[in-house]
Amino acid sequence: MAHEKYQACVQACNDCADACDHCATACLQEQDVQMMARCIALDMDCAAICRLAAGYMSRDSQFAAQLCRQCADVCQACGDECAKHQHDHCQACAQACRRCAEECRRMAAA
Amino acid sequence: MAHEKYQACVQACNDCADACDHCATACLQEQDVQMMARCIALDMDCAAICRLAAGYMSRDSQFAAQLCRQCADVCQACGDECAKHQHDHCQACAQACRRCAEECRRMAAA
Amino acid sequence: MAHEKYQACVQACNDCADACDHCATACLQEQDVQMMARCIALDMDCAAICRLAAGYMSRDSQFAAQLCRQCADVCQACGDECAKHQHDHCQACAQACRRCAEECRRMAAA
Amino acid sequence: MAHEKYQACVQACNDCADACDHCATACLQEQDVQMMARCIALDMDCAAICRLAAGYMSRDSQFAAQLCRQCADVCQACGDECAKHQHDHCQACAQACRRCAEECRRMAAA
Repeated sequence: MAHEKYQACVQACNDCADACDHCATACLQEQDVQMMARCIALDMDCAAICRLAAGYMSRDSQFAAQLCRQCADVCQACGDECAKHQHDHCQACAQACRRCAEECRRMAAA
Repeated sequence: MAHEKYQACVQACNDCADACDHCATACLQEQDVQMMARCIALDMDCAAICRLAAGYMSRDSQFAAQLCRQCADVCQACGDECAKHQHDHCQACAQACRRCAEECRRMAAA
Repeated sequence: MAHEKYQACVQACNDCADACDHCATACLQEQDVQMMARCIALDMDCAAICRLAAGYMSRDSQFAAQLCRQCADVCQACGDECAKHQHDHCQACAQACRRCAEECRRMAAA
Repeated sequence: MAHEKYQACVQACNDCADACDHCATACLQEQDVQMMARCIALDMDCAAICRLAAGYMSRDSQFAAQLCRQCADVCQACGDECAKHQHDHCQACAQACRRCAEECRRMAAA
């Protein structure tokens, strides 16, 4: 069943969305918020598309693979930005983003 | 940290959203779709508010508790409807909904 | 300002999302729901990606154009399916979907 | 028809979501981002619940009124915060939020 076939990717998308939402809030509380502006903006984009992708996969949408390909690009950009910052929430987010980008690419290629 | 404090509830919301999205699609493929109409409608409402609630909690929003209280009501209604149908996807969804309703009520009361 | 540059497309996305959500509910109340199953499934996909695209454009995301290209594909598929059904809500939805597909393509090409 | 009955409120929710998303991005580009942190956080909450409420109303959900009551609270808080800042995007957002709070309360009371 599609639902189960996609399980690893759905899980990675949910985890990534939560990590991005958490990172955005934590960035807003950092002393140098200005340095985190691009990180926060990408966190918002990434959380939103990850939740959409999870929904598409869970509904076994005919557009799920196409959406995951797009989601991977956003995750990659967000992960690359987060990786530049030493805050724990950024490093954790970078890891979740990169794992999700990988799962999304694998899913889109299957 | 709020993020971690809410972890069980965020997880329950993500699981419930995925179960609802899956149930909606599976219901649409049942022979007697008409009998599943209310189930599908509630699945849509429930998946959407669960994903919103997960985001609010992950962002440690000041409205997270209030939103979870509302989310519990939708989960309860969706779980009650799903429980009436014998399809596996409905029974699985009913269970995810009820677990999520419980976690959301606990979170809102904390 | 980007916000204003995208105004026609944001408006088309919001209108399309609302038309799809309305169409899904109305389809569920039709006598022959089974015949509407694909329409309902595409309505869900289309409403969700249109709301995401509106958000990306309003935030002037670097991924807005890419997302609109994807959104156009979903709108096209949803509009093509809706156009096959004579119900008023399907015809109205088909029109909103096609208008949105057009605006999204124009936006993505700009 | 419910869809049309709610039209003013759906429109106000869509406008408010777009204004909040735009305000969040514009705040992130202000020189004193730190001063805008609470504004940005509320913009995110408000945009997300407004889009959810628009969907609930367009689907004529049984939970639409309850959701609009909740949406009004978030809009009120976001509007009050935005109103404190002199930036054009904050003033425009405050206005959209307050109008949406009003429409949501009217809808919930009907």
